[in-house]
Amino acid sequence: MGRWEPNARGRLEEAAMNLFQERGYDRTTVEEIAARAGLTERTFFRYFADKKEVLFGGAGELRRLITSTITDAPEETSPLEAVAAALDATAPVFKERRDYARARQGLIVAHAELRERELIKLADLASAAADALRGRGVTEPAASLTAEAGIAVFKVAFERWVEDPKSQDLSQHLRSTLDELRAVTASTGTANPPQPVKRAKAPRR
Amino acid sequence: MGRWEPNARGRLEEAAMNLFQERGYDRTTVEEIAARAGLTERTFFRYFADKKEVLFGGAGELRRLITSTITDAPEETSPLEAVAAALDATAPVFKERRDYARARQGLIVAHAELRERELIKLADLASAAADALRGRGVTEPAASLTAEAGIAVFKVAFERWVEDPKSQDLSQHLRSTLDELRAVTASTGTANPPQPVKRAKAPRR
Repeated sequence: MGRWEPNARGRLEEAAMNLFQERGYDRTTVEEIAARAGLTERTFFRYFADKKEVLFGGAGELRRLITSTITDAPEETSPLEAVAAALDATAPVFKERRDYARARQGLIVAHAELRERELIKLADLASAAADALRGRGVTEPAASLTAEAGIAVFKVAFERWVEDPKSQDLSQHLRSTLDELRAVTASTGTANPPQPVKRAKAPRR
Repeated sequence: MGRWEPNARGRLEEAAMNLFQERGYDRTTVEEIAARAGLTERTFFRYFADKKEVLFGGAGELRRLITSTITDAPEETSPLEAVAAALDATAPVFKERRDYARARQGLIVAHAELRERELIKLADLASAAADALRGRGVTEPAASLTAEAGIAVFKVAFERWVEDPKSQDLSQHLRSTLDELRAVTASTGTANPPQPVKRAKAPRR
Protein backbone atom coordinates (compact mmCIF):
# COMPACT_ATOMS: atom_id res chain seq x y z
CA MET A 1 0.00 0.00 0.00
CA GLY A 2 1.23 3.50 -0.79
CA ARG A 3 0.60 6.48 1.41
CA TRP A 4 -2.96 7.53 2.01
CA GLU A 5 -4.18 10.29 -0.31
CA PRO A 6 -7.09 12.40 0.90
CA ASN A 7 -10.19 11.72 -1.22
CA ALA A 8 -8.17 10.00 -3.94
CA ARG A 9 -11.28 8.26 -5.25
CA GLY A 10 -13.23 11.48 -5.69
CA ARG A 11 -10.25 13.27 -7.25
CA LEU A 12 -9.77 10.45 -9.78
CA GLU A 13 -13.48 10.45 -10.66
CA GLU A 14 -13.48 14.20 -11.20
CA ALA A 15 -10.23 14.17 -13.21
CA ALA A 16 -11.53 11.31 -15.38
CA MET A 17 -14.82 13.04 -16.15
CA ASN A 18 -13.07 16.30 -17.01
CA LEU A 19 -10.69 14.51 -19.37
CA PHE A 20 -13.47 12.45 -20.96
CA GLN A 21 -15.33 15.70 -21.65
CA GLU A 22 -12.27 17.51 -22.98
CA ARG A 23 -10.72 14.89 -25.26
CA GLY A 24 -13.21 12.04 -25.38
CA TYR A 25 -13.42 8.76 -23.49
CA ASP A 26 -11.42 6.72 -26.01
CA ARG A 27 -8.53 9.16 -26.16
CA THR A 28 -8.03 9.39 -22.40
CA THR A 29 -5.57 7.06 -20.65
CA VAL A 30 -5.41 5.94 -17.03
CA GLU A 31 -1.98 7.60 -16.82
CA GLU A 32 -3.50 10.94 -17.81
CA ILE A 33 -6.35 10.58 -15.34
CA ALA A 34 -3.92 9.89 -12.51
CA ALA A 35 -1.69 12.80 -13.54
CA ARG A 36 -4.62 15.23 -13.69
CA ALA A 37 -5.66 14.12 -10.18
CA GLY A 38 -2.06 14.62 -8.98
CA LEU A 39 -1.77 10.90 -8.22
CA THR A 40 0.09 7.90 -9.62
CA GLU A 41 -1.25 5.21 -11.96
CA ARG A 42 -0.61 2.76 -9.15
CA THR A 43 -2.99 4.72 -6.92
CA PHE A 44 -5.61 4.68 -9.69
CA PHE A 45 -5.49 0.90 -9.82
CA ARG A 46 -5.81 0.68 -6.05
CA TYR A 47 -9.32 2.15 -6.47
CA PHE A 48 -10.44 1.05 -9.93
CA ALA A 49 -9.82 -2.15 -11.91
CA ASP A 50 -9.78 -0.34 -15.27
CA LYS A 51 -10.67 2.94 -17.02
CA LYS A 52 -14.35 1.97 -17.34
CA GLU A 53 -14.67 1.34 -13.62
CA VAL A 54 -13.95 4.98 -12.72
CA LEU A 55 -17.50 5.72 -13.93
CA PHE A 56 -19.02 2.99 -11.74
CA GLY A 57 -17.36 3.73 -8.42
CA GLY A 58 -20.70 4.27 -6.68
CA ALA A 59 -22.08 0.79 -7.45
CA GLY A 60 -20.94 -0.77 -4.18
CA GLU A 61 -22.58 1.99 -2.15
CA LEU A 62 -25.85 1.63 -4.10
CA ARG A 63 -25.79 -2.11 -3.52
CA ARG A 64 -25.30 -1.71 0.23
CA LEU A 65 -28.06 0.92 0.45
CA ILE A 66 -30.53 -1.21 -1.51
CA THR A 67 -29.78 -4.37 0.43
CA SER A 68 -29.92 -2.78 3.89
CA THR A 69 -33.11 -0.82 3.15
CA ILE A 70 -34.92 -3.96 1.97
CA THR A 71 -33.63 -5.97 4.93
CA ASP A 72 -34.60 -3.29 7.47
CA ALA A 73 -38.08 -2.50 6.06
CA PRO A 74 -40.92 -3.12 8.55
CA GLU A 75 -42.24 -6.67 8.44
CA GLU A 76 -45.64 -5.71 6.98
CA THR A 77 -44.04 -3.93 3.99
CA SER A 78 -44.90 -5.63 0.69
CA PRO A 79 -41.99 -6.77 -1.52
CA LEU A 80 -42.55 -3.98 -4.06
CA GLU A 81 -42.82 -1.35 -1.33
CA ALA A 82 -39.55 -2.58 0.18
CA VAL A 83 -37.85 -2.27 -3.20
CA ALA A 84 -39.41 1.16 -3.75
CA ALA A 85 -38.05 2.31 -0.37
CA ALA A 86 -34.63 0.93 -1.33
CA LEU A 87 -34.59 2.87 -4.61
CA ASP A 88 -35.69 6.00 -2.81
CA ALA A 89 -32.83 5.54 -0.34
CA THR A 90 -30.38 5.95 -3.24
CA ALA A 91 -31.75 9.36 -4.28
CA PRO A 92 -29.62 11.40 -1.81
CA VAL A 93 -26.48 9.83 -3.34
CA PHE A 94 -27.29 11.54 -6.63
CA LYS A 95 -28.58 14.82 -5.25
CA GLU A 96 -26.23 17.69 -6.22
CA ARG A 97 -24.67 15.35 -8.83
CA ARG A 98 -27.14 15.75 -11.67
CA ASP A 99 -24.60 17.43 -13.98
CA TYR A 100 -22.11 14.64 -13.34
CA ALA A 101 -24.85 12.03 -13.86
CA ARG A 102 -25.90 13.64 -17.14
CA ALA A 103 -22.32 13.71 -18.46
CA ARG A 104 -21.85 10.10 -17.35
CA GLN A 105 -25.10 9.02 -19.02
CA GLY A 106 -23.95 10.65 -22.27
CA LEU A 107 -20.73 8.64 -22.18
CA ILE A 108 -22.57 5.39 -21.45
CA VAL A 109 -25.01 5.87 -24.31
CA ALA A 110 -22.12 6.59 -26.70
CA HIS A 111 -19.82 3.65 -25.82
CA ALA A 112 -20.87 0.00 -26.15
CA GLU A 113 -18.32 -1.17 -23.57
CA LEU A 114 -19.74 1.27 -21.01
CA ARG A 115 -23.31 0.20 -21.80
CA GLU A 116 -22.26 -3.40 -21.11
CA ARG A 117 -20.69 -2.47 -17.81
CA GLU A 118 -23.83 -0.50 -16.87
CA LEU A 119 -26.05 -3.50 -17.67
CA ILE A 120 -23.88 -5.74 -15.50
CA LYS A 121 -24.02 -3.29 -12.60
CA LEU A 122 -27.81 -3.03 -12.89
CA ALA A 123 -28.10 -6.84 -13.04
CA ASP A 124 -25.94 -7.02 -9.89
CA LEU A 125 -28.28 -4.59 -8.14
CA ALA A 126 -31.31 -6.69 -9.17
CA SER A 127 -29.60 -9.81 -7.90
CA ALA A 128 -28.73 -8.15 -4.57
CA ALA A 129 -32.31 -6.89 -4.18
CA ALA A 130 -33.68 -10.40 -4.91
CA ASP A 131 -31.32 -11.87 -2.29
CA ALA A 132 -32.49 -9.34 0.29
CA LEU A 133 -36.15 -10.10 -0.52
CA ARG A 134 -35.54 -13.84 -0.12
CA GLY A 135 -33.93 -13.00 3.22
CA ARG A 136 -37.34 -11.52 4.21
CA GLY A 137 -39.06 -14.77 3.28
CA VAL A 138 -40.31 -13.70 -0.16
CA THR A 139 -40.50 -16.81 -2.36
CA GLU A 140 -39.54 -17.28 -6.00
CA PRO A 141 -40.44 -16.14 -8.59
CA ALA A 142 -41.86 -13.15 -6.68
CA ALA A 143 -38.45 -12.15 -5.27
CA SER A 144 -36.64 -12.11 -8.62
CA LEU A 145 -39.54 -10.50 -10.46
CA THR A 146 -40.01 -7.74 -7.91
CA ALA A 147 -36.28 -7.03 -7.93
CA GLU A 148 -36.13 -6.95 -11.75
CA ALA A 149 -39.22 -4.74 -11.94
CA GLY A 150 -37.68 -2.43 -9.34
CA ILE A 151 -34.45 -2.10 -11.30
CA ALA A 152 -36.45 -1.45 -14.48
CA VAL A 153 -38.16 1.41 -12.62
CA PHE A 154 -34.78 2.70 -11.44
CA LYS A 155 -33.31 2.60 -14.95
CA VAL A 156 -36.24 4.41 -16.57
CA ALA A 157 -36.59 6.94 -13.72
CA PHE A 158 -32.87 7.67 -13.71
CA GLU A 159 -32.83 8.40 -17.46
CA ARG A 160 -35.82 10.69 -17.07
CA TRP A 161 -34.27 12.49 -14.11
CA VAL A 162 -31.02 13.10 -15.98
CA GLU A 163 -32.87 14.62 -18.93
CA ASP A 164 -35.58 16.45 -16.99
CA PRO A 165 -35.62 20.13 -17.99
CA LYS A 166 -37.72 20.90 -14.89
CA SER A 167 -35.11 19.40 -12.57
CA GLN A 168 -37.59 17.47 -10.44
CA ASP A 169 -35.62 15.38 -8.01
CA LEU A 170 -34.89 11.69 -8.47
CA SER A 171 -37.32 10.68 -5.71
CA GLN A 172 -40.21 12.23 -7.62
CA HIS A 173 -39.19 10.46 -10.83
CA LEU A 174 -38.88 7.14 -8.99
CA ARG A 175 -42.36 7.56 -7.50
CA SER A 176 -44.06 8.54 -10.75
CA THR A 177 -42.27 5.76 -12.68
CA LEU A 178 -43.36 3.19 -10.08
CA ASP A 179 -46.95 4.45 -10.38
CA GLU A 180 -46.63 4.09 -14.14
CA LEU A 181 -45.43 0.49 -13.74
CA ARG A 182 -48.48 -0.24 -11.58
CA ALA A 183 -50.71 1.34 -14.21
CA VAL A 184 -49.24 -0.63 -17.13
CA THR A 185 -49.40 -3.94 -15.28
CA ALA A 186 -52.97 -3.27 -14.11
CA SER A 187 -54.12 -2.17 -17.55
CA THR A 188 -54.90 -5.52 -19.15
CA GLY A 189 -57.89 -7.24 -20.62
CA THR A 190 -57.02 -10.60 -19.10
CA ALA A 191 -59.92 -13.02 -18.64
CA ASN A 192 -58.60 -13.96 -15.18
CA PRO A 193 -57.50 -10.80 -13.41
CA PRO A 194 -54.92 -11.84 -10.83
CA GLN A 195 -55.69 -11.32 -7.16
CA PRO A 196 -52.89 -9.95 -5.03
CA VAL A 197 -51.59 -12.82 -2.89
CA LYS A 198 -51.40 -10.65 0.19
CA ARG A 199 -52.27 -7.01 0.53
CA ALA A 200 -50.24 -5.19 3.15
CA LYS A 201 -52.23 -2.86 5.36
CA ALA A 202 -52.04 0.77 4.35
CA PRO A 203 -49.68 2.46 6.79
CA ARG A 204 -51.17 5.25 8.89
CA ARG A 205 -49.80 8.60 7.91
CA MET B 1 -18.58 -15.67 -50.23
CA GLY B 2 -17.70 -19.37 -50.15
CA ARG B 3 -20.01 -22.09 -51.37
CA TRP B 4 -23.30 -22.59 -49.60
CA GLU B 5 -23.25 -25.27 -46.88
CA PRO B 6 -26.60 -26.86 -45.98
CA ASN B 7 -27.62 -25.79 -42.44
CA ALA B 8 -24.11 -24.57 -41.62
CA ARG B 9 -25.46 -22.42 -38.79
CA GLY B 10 -27.24 -25.32 -37.09
CA ARG B 11 -24.24 -27.63 -37.55
CA LEU B 12 -21.90 -25.06 -35.99
CA GLU B 13 -24.25 -24.53 -33.04
CA GLU B 14 -24.53 -28.25 -32.41
CA ALA B 15 -20.78 -28.86 -32.78
CA ALA B 16 -20.02 -25.94 -30.43
CA MET B 17 -22.40 -27.16 -27.72
CA ASN B 18 -21.03 -30.70 -27.92
CA LEU B 19 -17.46 -29.44 -27.58
CA PHE B 20 -18.34 -27.05 -24.75
CA GLN B 21 -19.90 -29.98 -22.89
CA GLU B 22 -17.00 -32.33 -23.60
CA ARG B 23 -14.00 -30.12 -22.86
CA GLY B 24 -15.39 -26.93 -21.41
CA TYR B 25 -16.18 -23.57 -22.96
CA ASP B 26 -12.77 -22.02 -22.28
CA ARG B 27 -10.80 -24.88 -23.80
CA THR B 28 -12.74 -24.99 -27.06
CA THR B 29 -11.50 -22.98 -30.06
CA VAL B 30 -13.39 -21.72 -33.11
CA GLU B 31 -11.09 -23.89 -35.25
CA GLU B 32 -12.22 -27.00 -33.37
CA ILE B 33 -15.89 -26.05 -33.63
CA ALA B 34 -15.59 -25.60 -37.39
CA ALA B 35 -13.68 -28.89 -37.77
CA ARG B 36 -16.29 -30.81 -35.74
CA ALA B 37 -19.03 -29.38 -37.96
CA GLY B 38 -17.06 -30.35 -41.07
CA LEU B 39 -16.68 -26.68 -42.03
CA THR B 40 -13.90 -24.12 -42.21
CA GLU B 41 -13.10 -21.39 -39.69
CA ARG B 42 -13.90 -18.92 -42.43
CA THR B 43 -17.43 -20.34 -42.69
CA PHE B 44 -17.77 -20.03 -38.88
CA PHE B 45 -17.00 -16.32 -39.06
CA ARG B 46 -19.50 -15.86 -41.87
CA TYR B 47 -22.22 -16.76 -39.34
CA PHE B 48 -20.81 -15.68 -35.97
CA ALA B 49 -18.61 -12.75 -34.96
CA ASP B 50 -16.86 -14.73 -32.21
CA LYS B 51 -17.02 -17.91 -30.11
CA LYS B 52 -19.51 -16.40 -27.68
CA GLU B 53 -21.91 -15.52 -30.47
CA VAL B 54 -22.49 -19.17 -31.42
CA LEU B 55 -24.64 -19.39 -28.27
CA PHE B 56 -26.70 -16.34 -29.25
CA GLY B 57 -27.54 -17.15 -32.84
CA GLY B 58 -31.29 -17.06 -32.17
CA ALA B 59 -31.33 -13.45 -30.93
CA GLY B 60 -32.15 -11.95 -34.31
CA GLU B 61 -35.11 -14.28 -34.78
CA LEU B 62 -36.42 -13.48 -31.29
CA ARG B 63 -36.11 -9.79 -31.99
CA ARG B 64 -38.04 -10.04 -35.25
CA LEU B 65 -40.77 -12.17 -33.63
CA ILE B 66 -41.17 -9.79 -30.70
CA THR B 67 -41.23 -6.69 -32.89
CA SER B 68 -43.68 -8.05 -35.45
CA THR B 69 -46.05 -9.50 -32.83
CA ILE B 70 -46.24 -6.18 -30.97
CA THR B 71 -46.68 -4.24 -34.22
CA ASP B 72 -49.41 -6.58 -35.50
CA ALA B 73 -51.40 -6.87 -32.25
CA PRO B 74 -55.04 -5.68 -32.55
CA GLU B 75 -55.42 -1.98 -31.87
CA GLU B 76 -57.35 -2.45 -28.60
CA THR B 77 -54.60 -4.62 -27.10
CA SER B 78 -53.00 -2.99 -24.04
CA PRO B 79 -49.21 -2.46 -24.10
CA LEU B 80 -48.56 -5.25 -21.58
CA GLU B 81 -50.84 -7.66 -23.45
CA ALA B 82 -49.02 -6.91 -26.70
CA VAL B 83 -45.69 -7.65 -25.00
CA ALA B 84 -47.15 -10.81 -23.44
CA ALA B 85 -48.30 -11.97 -26.89
CA ALA B 86 -44.83 -11.22 -28.26
CA LEU B 87 -43.13 -13.30 -25.56
CA ASP B 88 -45.59 -16.12 -26.15
CA ALA B 89 -44.79 -16.01 -29.87
CA THR B 90 -41.18 -16.96 -29.02
CA ALA B 91 -42.17 -20.16 -27.18
CA PRO B 92 -42.32 -22.38 -30.31
CA VAL B 93 -38.70 -21.42 -31.08
CA PHE B 94 -37.63 -23.16 -27.86
CA LYS B 95 -39.99 -26.12 -28.01
CA GLU B 96 -38.03 -29.37 -28.49
CA ARG B 97 -34.89 -27.45 -27.48
CA ARG B 98 -35.15 -27.61 -23.68
CA ASP B 99 -32.05 -29.80 -23.29
CA TYR B 100 -30.05 -27.42 -25.45
CA ALA B 101 -31.45 -24.44 -23.55
CA ARG B 102 -30.56 -26.02 -20.21
CA ALA B 103 -26.98 -26.75 -21.31
CA ARG B 104 -26.69 -23.21 -22.68
CA GLN B 105 -28.03 -21.71 -19.44
CA GLY B 106 -25.44 -23.69 -17.47
CA LEU B 107 -22.67 -22.20 -19.60
CA ILE B 108 -24.02 -18.68 -19.25
CA VAL B 109 -24.28 -18.90 -15.47
CA ALA B 110 -20.69 -20.21 -15.27
CA HIS B 111 -18.96 -17.64 -17.53
CA ALA B 112 -18.98 -13.90 -16.83
CA GLU B 113 -18.36 -13.01 -20.49
CA LEU B 114 -21.42 -15.04 -21.53
CA ARG B 115 -23.55 -13.45 -18.80
CA GLU B 116 -22.55 -10.05 -20.17
CA ARG B 117 -23.49 -11.04 -23.71
CA GLU B 118 -26.81 -12.42 -22.45
CA LEU B 119 -27.57 -9.15 -20.64
CA ILE B 120 -26.81 -7.18 -23.80
CA LYS B 121 -29.08 -9.42 -25.89
CA LEU B 122 -31.91 -9.06 -23.36
CA ALA B 123 -31.43 -5.27 -23.28
CA ASP B 124 -31.60 -5.27 -27.10
CA LEU B 125 -34.89 -7.19 -26.95
CA ALA B 126 -36.28 -4.69 -24.42
CA SER B 127 -35.19 -1.83 -26.63
CA ALA B 128 -36.79 -3.43 -29.73
CA ALA B 129 -40.03 -4.05 -27.81
CA ALA B 130 -40.09 -0.43 -26.59
CA ASP B 131 -39.57 0.79 -30.18
CA ALA B 132 -42.45 -1.38 -31.38
CA LEU B 133 -44.70 -0.07 -28.60
CA ARG B 134 -43.86 3.54 -29.48
CA GLY B 135 -44.75 2.62 -33.06
CA ARG B 136 -48.23 1.78 -31.72
CA GLY B 137 -48.49 5.21 -30.13
CA VAL B 138 -47.58 4.19 -26.57
CA THR B 139 -45.91 7.14 -24.89
CA GLU B 140 -42.90 7.25 -22.58
CA PRO B 141 -42.23 6.13 -19.91
CA ALA B 142 -44.99 3.51 -20.43
CA ALA B 143 -43.32 2.04 -23.54
CA SER B 144 -39.89 1.53 -21.94
CA LEU B 145 -41.32 0.33 -18.64
CA THR B 146 -43.67 -2.18 -20.25
CA ALA B 147 -40.86 -3.49 -22.43
CA GLU B 148 -38.44 -3.78 -19.49
CA ALA B 149 -41.10 -5.48 -17.36
CA GLY B 150 -41.85 -7.88 -20.22
CA ILE B 151 -38.19 -8.82 -20.60
CA ALA B 152 -37.95 -9.32 -16.82
CA VAL B 153 -40.88 -11.75 -17.13
CA PHE B 154 -39.15 -13.50 -20.02
CA LYS B 155 -35.87 -13.84 -18.11
CA VAL B 156 -37.48 -15.25 -14.97
CA ALA B 157 -39.89 -17.53 -16.87
CA PHE B 158 -37.09 -18.84 -19.08
CA GLU B 159 -34.92 -19.76 -16.08
CA ARG B 160 -37.87 -21.52 -14.45
CA TRP B 161 -38.74 -23.39 -17.65
CA VAL B 162 -35.16 -24.61 -18.08
CA GLU B 163 -35.07 -25.97 -14.52
CA ASP B 164 -38.67 -27.22 -14.34
CA PRO B 165 -38.71 -30.89 -13.29
CA LYS B 166 -42.32 -31.16 -14.47
CA SER B 167 -41.43 -29.97 -17.98
CA GLN B 168 -44.35 -27.56 -18.30
CA ASP B 169 -43.93 -25.67 -21.52
CA LEU B 170 -42.48 -22.18 -21.81
CA SER B 171 -45.88 -20.64 -22.61
CA GLN B 172 -47.24 -21.81 -19.26
CA HIS B 173 -44.23 -20.39 -17.42
CA LEU B 174 -44.57 -17.09 -19.26
CA ARG B 175 -48.24 -16.85 -18.32
CA SER B 176 -47.76 -17.73 -14.66
CA THR B 177 -44.76 -15.38 -14.36
CA LEU B 178 -46.75 -12.53 -15.90
CA ASP B 179 -49.60 -13.20 -13.44
CA GLU B 180 -47.02 -13.12 -10.67
CA LEU B 181 -45.74 -9.74 -11.90
CA ARG B 182 -49.29 -8.40 -11.82
CA ALA B 183 -49.70 -9.75 -8.29
CA VAL B 184 -46.49 -8.20 -6.97
CA THR B 185 -47.20 -4.81 -8.53
CA ALA B 186 -50.81 -4.84 -7.27
CA SER B 187 -49.82 -5.92 -3.77
CA THR B 188 -48.95 -2.58 -2.23
CA GLY B 189 -50.07 -0.54 0.71
CA THR B 190 -49.86 2.74 -1.14
CA ALA B 191 -52.07 5.56 0.11
CA ASN B 192 -52.94 6.44 -3.51
CA PRO B 193 -53.63 3.25 -5.42
CA PRO B 194 -52.97 4.00 -9.08
CA GLN B 195 -55.83 3.85 -11.52
CA PRO B 196 -55.17 2.19 -14.84
CA VAL B 197 -54.96 4.94 -17.42
CA LYS B 198 -56.98 2.96 -19.91
CA ARG B 199 -58.42 -0.50 -19.52
CA ALA B 200 -58.70 -2.43 -22.76
CA LYS B 201 -61.97 -4.29 -23.24
CA ALA B 202 -61.77 -7.95 -22.32
CA PRO B 203 -61.66 -9.93 -25.55
CA ARG B 204 -64.48 -12.42 -26.09
CA ARG B 205 -63.24 -15.97 -25.85
